[in-house]
Amino acid sequence: MGETAMAHVALIGSGIIGRSWAIVFARAGLDVRLVVRRAEAREEIARLIQEAAERATPIAPDVAVESILSRIGFVATPEDAAADAGFVMEAIREDLAEKTALFRVLDGVAPRDALLASSTSSFGASRFASELSGRGRIIVVHPLAPPHLMPATEIVPAPFTALETVETAFEVMRAVGQKPLLVRKEQPGFVMNRLQGALLLEMMRVVDDGLMEPEDVDSIVRDGFGLRWAFLGPFAGIDLNAPGGIADYLKRYGFMFEDLARERGMKTPVVTEGVMATLHDAMRTAHPLSEQGARIAARDRRMAALRALRRDMASRSH
Amino acid sequence: MGETAMAHVALIGSGIIGRSWAIVFARAGLDVRLVVRRAEAREEIARLIQEAAERATPIAPDVAVESILSRIGFVATPEDAAADAGFVMEAIREDLAEKTALFRVLDGVAPRDALLASSTSSFGASRFASELSGRGRIIVVHPLAPPHLMPATEIVPAPFTALETVETAFEVMRAVGQKPLLVRKEQPGFVMNRLQGALLLEMMRVVDDGLMEPEDVDSIVRDGFGLRWAFLGPFAGIDLNAPGGIADYLKRYGFMFEDLARERGMKTPVVTEGVMATLHDAMRTAHPLSEQGARIAARDRRMAALRALRRDMASRSH
Repeated sequence: MGETAMAHVALIGSGIIGRSWAIVFARAGLDVRLVVRRAEAREEIARLIQEAAERATPIAPDVAVESILSRIGFVATPEDAAADAGFVMEAIREDLAEKTALFRVLDGVAPRDALLASSTSSFGASRFASELSGRGRIIVVHPLAPPHLMPATEIVPAPFTALETVETAFEVMRAVGQKPLLVRKEQPGFVMNRLQGALLLEMMRVVDDGLMEPEDVDSIVRDGFGLRWAFLGPFAGIDLNAPGGIADYLKRYGFMFEDLARERGMKTPVVTEGVMATLHDAMRTAHPLSEQGARIAARDRRMAALRALRRDMASRSH
Repeated sequence: MGETAMAHVALIGSGIIGRSWAIVFARAGLDVRLVVRRAEAREEIARLIQEAAERATPIAPDVAVESILSRIGFVATPEDAAADAGFVMEAIREDLAEKTALFRVLDGVAPRDALLASSTSSFGASRFASELSGRGRIIVVHPLAPPHLMPATEIVPAPFTALETVETAFEVMRAVGQKPLLVRKEQPGFVMNRLQGALLLEMMRVVDDGLMEPEDVDSIVRDGFGLRWAFLGPFAGIDLNAPGGIADYLKRYGFMFEDLARERGMKTPVVTEGVMATLHDAMRTAHPLSEQGARIAARDRRMAALRALRRDMASRSH
């Protein structure tokens, strides 16, 4: 997407997510109109954006912070932002009535070909946009906080969302350096918060059972799995921990996870032959087993570099 | 721990974990006797250790790979390794009968003051050492794979393990640069595999429900949460995502996790007032809320540096 390929981005919401989206779009060369109702709040918002952009410069070292800031303009109302916009992103608080009212306004004022996206982490678009005449262009684009540091972004169409809206959401997210991930059905928590939730629930159980101190439970991830997951997803991680890959790993150790599911009262089986076959096929299509040695070597080098980075940054902060 | 403070380390098992432990101990200046029964296998094992040590040099740039290798000697039997040892580490395959037989041998030949540790990921020491006269010095020291890259290490005493054994296990692990974490009760999967298991189970459910492609589920962690978890545990991560810290976060979003637990059939409630209070106390003792801004700034700088590292390493591998 060239700088002239899209009209400006309208951003409604100037909290953590809205400010971070402003950096994402402006850093990619797009003009942003950010809604800040109270004129006297703009200076503070601009300062917060500048500080966040300065801390993030290693991500796009060729883009000057001043050029990011120069692309972000403030407007007073959603109507001002959405008029003539090429893409509209909502990032207000999680209040269904407010979102419903806002999307009614946006659908009325935004150009007919402008996509309307919501950053909501809780509501499918069915909950707040089903009555609108332009509902086909409405879609959930749910980032992690803050998106200018974390590219993974869920794309959640409602049943009424048009296919071309899904495609445009993917194109725009890719063009600004995010990683769009399709969620095929609307459901509470989408997928990202389900994964985080599953891990946090088990961590809370461990604390509640008095098995381990909270700080130590955190350390298992920070000083353990997290060093791997910064480069390899959990599936890819276990794929490298058995000679025959992920199916081999689950054949050896799947019983441990199944026992855990049973003990927690979950519906079992989870580690089925079907799931194992799906994971095996997906992994082997992407990476034949003959690459296993090279992938392990690459993993090791990345983790060692991350350990060095952590040491350097810790010593710098003292 | 100076180089002369401890007799050599006996290592039984030359698989991924055993070879990695050899690097951990030798890198810290300790002499290692590694059991490799077949003399003709030693050249290959030495080569694998050398390659792994070379890839890991950024972790201890001042320690030459040759000096690591020079500290690792091969012996033919557990008896040869354990005689005169200061510390014994078992890392054979997960076979209860084999572990039981091995610890009987080790308890017979190792010096009375030598600690006997097992790297097992499945069995508490109660399962294989309860009958031994020296059982007070036996303890599980469970690493992630491979430990020379991932410091988090579970210390799991059996009910019969002596307190001084727990203390020694902590001292030795800290001295060699690992992060020992106390597990207060023996239970299947200890804690590390329960956390990984909870996340993997939910990921498998998402795949089985057809909600998202396996590669995209991995990407949620690799290009999302994992970038944060490489520096901050999941508790510390959510502690920074609400103005009032972790208790505030769970008051706002805990219902999402509780809904997930209920839907998965788990016993609820999980996100109780008691758990919230424990987590609040632990987090606020370590980090008063007044440090929130500085901690967010540090998180942002680390994540941006990691994004740059990932980019640099990806471009180098092409």
